[in-house]
Amino acid sequence: MLTRCLGARRLRQIRRAFRHGAVTFLCLFLTVIVLRGTIGAGKFGTPQQDFDNLRHHLNSHRRVLEEQHSEKTTTTTNNYATFDISTILVDEPSSKDEITRDPKAPYTLGPRITNWDQQRKRWLQQNPNFPNFIAPNKPRVLLVTGSSPKPCENPVGDHYLLKSIKNKIDYCRLHGIEIFYNMALFDAEMAGFWAKLPLIRKLLLSHPEVEFLWWMDSDAMFTDMAFEVPWERYKDHNFVMHGWNEMVYDEKNWIGLNTGSFLLRNCQWSLDILDSWAPMGPKGKVRDEAGKLLTRELKNRPVFEADDQSAMVYLLATERDKWGDKVYLENGYYLHGYWGILVDRYEEMIENYHPGLGDHRWPLVTHFVGCKPCGKFGDYPVERCLRQMDRAYNFGDNQILQMYGFTHKSLASKRVKRVRNESSNPLDVKDELGLLHPAFKAIRLSGMLIQ
Amino acid sequence: MLTRCLGARRLRQIRRAFRHGAVTFLCLFLTVIVLRGTIGAGKFGTPQQDFDNLRHHLNSHRRVLEEQHSEKTTTTTNNYATFDISTILVDEPSSKDEITRDPKAPYTLGPRITNWDQQRKRWLQQNPNFPNFIAPNKPRVLLVTGSSPKPCENPVGDHYLLKSIKNKIDYCRLHGIEIFYNMALFDAEMAGFWAKLPLIRKLLLSHPEVEFLWWMDSDAMFTDMAFEVPWERYKDHNFVMHGWNEMVYDEKNWIGLNTGSFLLRNCQWSLDILDSWAPMGPKGKVRDEAGKLLTRELKNRPVFEADDQSAMVYLLATERDKWGDKVYLENGYYLHGYWGILVDRYEEMIENYHPGLGDHRWPLVTHFVGCKPCGKFGDYPVERCLRQMDRAYNFGDNQILQMYGFTHKSLASKRVKRVRNESSNPLDVKDELGLLHPAFKAIRLSGMLIQ
Repeated sequence: MLTRCLGARRLRQIRRAFRHGAVTFLCLFLTVIVLRGTIGAGKFGTPQQDFDNLRHHLNSHRRVLEEQHSEKTTTTTNNYATFDISTILVDEPSSKDEITRDPKAPYTLGPRITNWDQQRKRWLQQNPNFPNFIAPNKPRVLLVTGSSPKPCENPVGDHYLLKSIKNKIDYCRLHGIEIFYNMALFDAEMAGFWAKLPLIRKLLLSHPEVEFLWWMDSDAMFTDMAFEVPWERYKDHNFVMHGWNEMVYDEKNWIGLNTGSFLLRNCQWSLDILDSWAPMGPKGKVRDEAGKLLTRELKNRPVFEADDQSAMVYLLATERDKWGDKVYLENGYYLHGYWGILVDRYEEMIENYHPGLGDHRWPLVTHFVGCKPCGKFGDYPVERCLRQMDRAYNFGDNQILQMYGFTHKSLASKRVKRVRNESSNPLDVKDELGLLHPAFKAIRLSGMLIQ
Repeated sequence: MLTRCLGARRLRQIRRAFRHGAVTFLCLFLTVIVLRGTIGAGKFGTPQQDFDNLRHHLNSHRRVLEEQHSEKTTTTTNNYATFDISTILVDEPSSKDEITRDPKAPYTLGPRITNWDQQRKRWLQQNPNFPNFIAPNKPRVLLVTGSSPKPCENPVGDHYLLKSIKNKIDYCRLHGIEIFYNMALFDAEMAGFWAKLPLIRKLLLSHPEVEFLWWMDSDAMFTDMAFEVPWERYKDHNFVMHGWNEMVYDEKNWIGLNTGSFLLRNCQWSLDILDSWAPMGPKGKVRDEAGKLLTRELKNRPVFEADDQSAMVYLLATERDKWGDKVYLENGYYLHGYWGILVDRYEEMIENYHPGLGDHRWPLVTHFVGCKPCGKFGDYPVERCLRQMDRAYNFGDNQILQMYGFTHKSLASKRVKRVRNESSNPLDVKDELGLLHPAFKAIRLSGMLIQ
């Protein structure tokens, strides 16, 4: 509607001005935070939380634009010197015709299951060769991530998705974790950030041997290759997210937790919370109306359609008695770490700390919320995002390369240099971080299998 | 030099004419092959081999251009509507200054090791929690692949690298194989296709627990998710490549084997063959001169610098007594399958066969030699390559999706459709191919670990 009144170009100009205004606001806000950091944070939490607030402010701004933008996109146009690939990459017709569900009937992720714990237990007993624990205190974990089956609108976006999955492959190989990379949309109604729900449910039910499912956004990277999740800490919990109790239960702050990286146990409770989480997701009127409710009910949430993260804050805050005892809001280490407050400190971390800490000193995960390298519109200058993503990638990659005697020439450089000579007794050489054969990767097989 | 004589533009025109000439030649050659297929192949092998010849003819042509082109590339230019990322993606200075090795001294991959079998055996005994066999007849395998740390010159190239690694992640997850994705150049002299040698040696020596290293090109995809490599067949061999004995040992045909997908056992013999393989690799005069020798000595090999595949043919053909007994040239299934003769038959395969065969009826690997989606110059029309890569990807992906009750709408479509309803007893539902919990993924742990 706005487009018809103002014209697309004017609308873009207005949006651009709004974004510039947001940047001005950002600078002012930063000034305030620095002052507060000097004077003291007071009852509003840490300067760290302020940054998160800021991030999410911009994050929501981005999401508004993202959702509006994605609805308009119907073709991918790529013109290259040698040929026009638009004939290959033209989007297929919209899948609106496939939503055959009666819109009046409530949305469900699938037929209700009430005895999943029993079904699963029986299956595990019948299948001892697919155990749900692969070592004492070491559950079988499936890390789930993914991206669109279409090439990125921004040509370098796919390159960053490639680096991101290599980064995850490296961490998961070291930690004995399997990966599922999704590029399929299972449920047209639950598109966008909600797509993870049908996917997660499907994987839990298909893989009873999986004890924990670890969802991780494609724009999140591992920056501590040595940190092992403290699985024992969660033995009485089913859902682990980075967040703060006060910000969720007391403030109903829409960024009180983050759903870009979380752990979900394979059990009946998890199926139940997925079922309770899903109803705000279906695209269209339901998601729009839910968005208005969330903006009204949550603290600081801007106006846009319902997202999975806000919905989870709302669910927990309003049904704490039902879910709270099995939810662990973890802030002792960066299961999710907002990139804005981490990436400029990498050199300081290298100087003062070491891998294995997982927290602000050496974050497990650096999450590039708001950057959106795959699309055309992000909340931050593209150059800032790409440069910092390179640095974060190299920061993590150095921990892999050191196993083999190499390191990046600098955090900005793709190139590597040798830092340890070759040896004719390679097995006498230990890598500094002990990552070649770490304890968290050891397995004890039945019988001696050295052949 | 040619550029100075003729001018860059004229040189490009000449190259373009040469490529067009190659296409004309291709058409003529195809005509001959079809006739021969009708009349009979005679003593020159099967029509299939003819296609391989053709493929490699174009492959070599591509490689000539590739090597010449890569030497010229110093900046990546990407101009997009919103910003100019050329400042980020400018190539770093050439690494010529880093080649400090005395060029007169023979090249080596590292200090000579002569007792690797003993070193490794001792380590395995001392580290029973890192066994080299993870089940009876199931060696621990590390699949190694990789790509350049730079964004592809062709913007969609990274998208196909992403799909390719997802494809490998899927196969390897099902088959209990770990992945190492390399994006670092360990040895500047061994750039290009030779880069795999220092990498492979480094990984073998760093990971004594790995029994077999499986090298796989980034342009090769798994198209049979159910096929398990017959490890037992190779219990007395150390090096498995797709190829034919006659074509290597009798004909010295430069495409008698393929080094795009091979298995290498972690043992002294393998270190020795890597040492013998490497000398033709160092970039510059050595590689150029070796290339001339290989063209002279091998059958049908065009003129270009030494490549690892030709070098291996030459090594085996001239030193059969030394290496031959431990090399298995496998043609019973497609450890490597030339895409040109496979991709148009996928529908026929679906109609008549099923996954698990691995051979011409349902190829384990479809290898897109000559396509080069990451660069600007391939041997085949880009559209043909990209369309067929999509089909091959979907052909393999369908076998993953069927586990979860979905399939691609067609081999050309990114979109998926449901083919099996959700159930409230998901564990009673078996996926058709039995890939959810296949035998080749089962492990027996010490003690019962169901918790």
